[in-house]
Amino acid sequence: MSYVLHYAPNTCALATHILLEALGVPYRAVRVDFARQAQRSPEYLRLNPKGRVPCLETPHGVLTETPALLAHLCEAHPAAGLAPLGDAFAMARFHEFNSYLGSTVHVAHAHRMRGSRWADDPAAWEAMKRKVPQSVGDGFAFVEERLVSPWVLGESMSACDFYLFTLASWLEGDGVDTSRLPRVLAHRERVGALPAVARAVAAEKAGG
Amino acid sequence: MSYVLHYAPNTCALATHILLEALGVPYRAVRVDFARQAQRSPEYLRLNPKGRVPCLETPHGVLTETPALLAHLCEAHPAAGLAPLGDAFAMARFHEFNSYLGSTVHVAHAHRMRGSRWADDPAAWEAMKRKVPQSVGDGFAFVEERLVSPWVLGESMSACDFYLFTLASWLEGDGVDTSRLPRVLAHRERVGALPAVARAVAAEKAGG
Repeated sequence: MSYVLHYAPNTCALATHILLEALGVPYRAVRVDFARQAQRSPEYLRLNPKGRVPCLETPHGVLTETPALLAHLCEAHPAAGLAPLGDAFAMARFHEFNSYLGSTVHVAHAHRMRGSRWADDPAAWEAMKRKVPQSVGDGFAFVEERLVSPWVLGESMSACDFYLFTLASWLEGDGVDTSRLPRVLAHRERVGALPAVARAVAAEKAGG
Repeated sequence: MSYVLHYAPNTCALATHILLEALGVPYRAVRVDFARQAQRSPEYLRLNPKGRVPCLETPHGVLTETPALLAHLCEAHPAAGLAPLGDAFAMARFHEFNSYLGSTVHVAHAHRMRGSRWADDPAAWEAMKRKVPQSVGDGFAFVEERLVSPWVLGESMSACDFYLFTLASWLEGDGVDTSRLPRVLAHRERVGALPAVARAVAAEKAGG
């Protein structure tokens, strides 16, 4: 059993990339070259008609959407203990957290570079960009206030930590005032120090 | 064991409302009066600091985010068979579908009324509104092309159907050209004919 992860650097695909490393399962990472619009190539669209990353080839079929990928990989490899699989309400918290990151925090961030998804007027794109430091900052402030130590779900590290780390790596680029976010920054440092994270980050930098 | 659902009419809370009806579990629905900004009241924010709906009081704690609520309720009440709990990859599809609705389709819709989340300039809000028929339409076109019959996941009805129904009920208001979406419209009619759906819709209309 092996996976193929289609990713692009500086995208949320990093969360799944880190998880694959942390699980220690066989996988291959394939870079989708956004600069060449490879996500819009007929070949890639046959694989993933959404034209986005991440996209994971699994033994059962192609899967997309970070919250779904994180949950599925954790469930397919339960021994790694990267989701609270035995506890239904803790799993609900796992899904709640990832859903918030995907539908609120990541969406706020996307307004910096992807304004054309939601308006055709370049002046509107500029207005969206101007709001990103606040909207992303507010999303993280919500996380900050509730962030427990050492990990998102408490005493046990989970895939939620990899997802939060990934989005938190965009904070400076988004112009967020990180002085409001000491716990998020400490968490980012803690996750960044994990060998699995270093391996995934290095692999994406090398373009491998 | 009983639930309390905090909802507002014409929001995605309807999906969870329908699911509670379909599960046949004891619950109480409490309307949050958006016209009076009740979602910003100190009382409501103590319950749900996100200041949004849906919000579900469960025996284990308060839970938010539609994809998390749908999955959790289905798992807490497995006998109803409203999620493919025994099949890991089918569950991944369940999460993938709901995540797509939450982070792409619903987000596109939100640009019609909630532009102030992503820009401070009223001209940008107008630009966002103008794009909604296309962006929501594109999100539904993606669903349309892949929609199987009779239900989102195939032969078995699931909570995904309630979520799709809920978002599809906004199509005309969003100005989407529904002639592109015959399967989505047929699905909406099929789901709308379910007694659980009629009960939830009627309850929200009555404000109960």
